[in-house]
Amino acid sequence: MGRWVPGARGRLQLAAMELYAERGFEQTTVAEIATRAGLTERTFFRHFADKREVLFAGQDQLTELVLAALAEAPAELSALDAATAAFAASTELFGERPDGPRARQSIIDAHPELQERELIKLARLGSAIAEGLERRGVAAPAASLAAQSSVAVFRTGFERWTTADDGRSLDACLREALAELKKVASAP
Amino acid sequence: MGRWVPGARGRLQLAAMELYAERGFEQTTVAEIATRAGLTERTFFRHFADKREVLFAGQDQLTELVLAALAEAPAELSALDAATAAFAASTELFGERPDGPRARQSIIDAHPELQERELIKLARLGSAIAEGLERRGVAAPAASLAAQSSVAVFRTGFERWTTADDGRSLDACLREALAELKKVASAP
Repeated sequence: MGRWVPGARGRLQLAAMELYAERGFEQTTVAEIATRAGLTERTFFRHFADKREVLFAGQDQLTELVLAALAEAPAELSALDAATAAFAASTELFGERPDGPRARQSIIDAHPELQERELIKLARLGSAIAEGLERRGVAAPAASLAAQSSVAVFRTGFERWTTADDGRSLDACLREALAELKKVASAP
Repeated sequence: MGRWVPGARGRLQLAAMELYAERGFEQTTVAEIATRAGLTERTFFRHFADKREVLFAGQDQLTELVLAALAEAPAELSALDAATAAFAASTELFGERPDGPRARQSIIDAHPELQERELIKLARLGSAIAEGLERRGVAAPAASLAAQSSVAVFRTGFERWTTADDGRSLDACLREALAELKKVASAP
């Protein structure tokens, strides 16, 4: 048994992101990630199932953050407003600057199998949000439609935040995307 | 070389759906599907990559139908209305009665890996619709938001059509889901 290394998970994530950027995702091995982090492969596999999972390690945390924020959103907010506001809580996960999320996204965008994994994770998040909305008393079809729409808003706002990099916050980009969705849905 | 059998594809699909319903998707082999259809395994593999693909064989046709209908939708329709109306063209693929689609859906819903495959196919369809909307002159963020919203409307309307089975057409179920989405997006 190797001894417990504080911060091992974070060091592995950092090492992986550096290596993916330097030599590409395909070309990077778990052994190299562990070496760069000053840890063993065994420690890597204690934290992540494979090198893909390093990229999606934040997804469970994202779901937790969004669901917690949704449960605490003011009762007077509409289903769609509450779900979109809940996504703003993800700033706690992504940070104030889009550099890290952008680097991660560029790796995902370059690999169809990673894109598929992300689409599935977002669809699952949408289902979890629909359940969260039902717990707020929203009827089933409206909850599902609001949840899927909020995921569309998140994807649009997140993409703008990471690509524009004009100093606007993720929250501001989400609000802008929400306004656009409402415009799209109300167009005569 | 086996000789060309007319209607082989349709016979294989029918045989597969019968066997999936009778003994379950997992328990059915390609050999059994071919035998039931009175064909060889070799013929099966000329039409489908594997037994999963039998379930998703209509997806390319769905994309073609929806994109063709979108290109021909009246110019005065909003992006979301045009995309949702385009989905109504899928009646040509699904038929007037929801029995076949319901049987297929119950198999997919029972298998997480088939659900994932369907989610990915729907997400790809959403991207194709976004491109179709851009060709209609819709700006990029609105096109993507309208496309993703139309997929949410399709999922909701399709689910209602296959589960309620109250004689309403798919088109009517899609219109109802669209009205609900608009209500969700305009709630104060």
